[in-house]
Amino acid sequence: MHEDIKQILKKCGAIKFGDFTLASGKKSRYYIDVRKAVTKPKTLRIICDHIVEKMKNHVIEPDYIACVELGGVPIGVLIADRTGLPLVIVRKEAKDHGTKGRLVGDFEKGKTALLLEDVTTTGGSVSSAIKALRDEGLRVDTIITVVDRQEGAEETISGMGMILIPLTTARDILRDDPIIKELKDIDAVMAV
Amino acid sequence: MHEDIKQILKKCGAIKFGDFTLASGKKSRYYIDVRKAVTKPKTLRIICDHIVEKMKNHVIEPDYIACVELGGVPIGVLIADRTGLPLVIVRKEAKDHGTKGRLVGDFEKGKTALLLEDVTTTGGSVSSAIKALRDEGLRVDTIITVVDRQEGAEETISGMGMILIPLTTARDILRDDPIIKELKDIDAVMAV
Repeated sequence: MHEDIKQILKKCGAIKFGDFTLASGKKSRYYIDVRKAVTKPKTLRIICDHIVEKMKNHVIEPDYIACVELGGVPIGVLIADRTGLPLVIVRKEAKDHGTKGRLVGDFEKGKTALLLEDVTTTGGSVSSAIKALRDEGLRVDTIITVVDRQEGAEETISGMGMILIPLTTARDILRDDPIIKELKDIDAVMAV
Repeated sequence: MHEDIKQILKKCGAIKFGDFTLASGKKSRYYIDVRKAVTKPKTLRIICDHIVEKMKNHVIEPDYIACVELGGVPIGVLIADRTGLPLVIVRKEAKDHGTKGRLVGDFEKGKTALLLEDVTTTGGSVSSAIKALRDEGLRVDTIITVVDRQEGAEETISGMGMILIPLTTARDILRDDPIIKELKDIDAVMAV
């Protein structure tokens, strides 16, 4: 049994409180900063242990490991290393010099990719990445995310006919947090 | 002895010929696409074997592994994993949401970072990264790059009081290449 994912995220300070504006533009009273986790080798290894376990449990056997720039890349690199599968990095936007396109890495059309992300919120970033992968002929049916902030990502992704597998969720993390326990209700924070 | 770095770069198709515009804005008749290498687990492992060897030979013992978005990140992640040192990722530009700043990852001021890059050309991208690291109080005195395209990076970096250690150079690669051998002179290509 691997070390609990919530515990290791808390231990490395991957939760911050304050006034944040997320990538989606939405305001938030908390920020789950998984990048604090993926830049620490020991923590990243434990995250990857959990991902490899999910791949086994769900019999996920892709041809490629895909990940989204930038937070998903450390996870993607280490899972590619562990599985021996080639990596496909999805850029935020197309580069205007050198070889064109949003995808970095070699791949064959018609093959499958497992998409890895650090955080999903509304699913906007992930659905854009899926579109980029599909546009280039790759098949994607599963996304594994370290933390799902539960603000629509699951609905967005299931609406595209895919499955979102989170290692943990915002609600799960907040439930255990001593700071949050002083607030009246997790739902009040979740709804901000 | 590890597999020769030039051979593995050639084997994975990391050299392209055509009309390219580099990040520096300079035109080039060839493109060394190290990203073809760093997205393949076996090739990335060999690159990292060479980097770890350079670190040993040059007695480089940093507190952090730093790398530049995006091409340097797979290398940085795997070297952080091998050495157990925390990773600091230098963004191309500051993110306008969430936690501010160009540096991703936790670090203490006054400590040292080894900067890793996939390709150096004029040294513009690397010197900007060094400035970002120094502005945040990190000390950098060595940069290891997979390929130095030898278009000024070494001069730029030594001018900042630092050492550039390339695993290989554009000239070294081109010297062995059968396509380039049909051209009259490597220097003619290097000077384009």
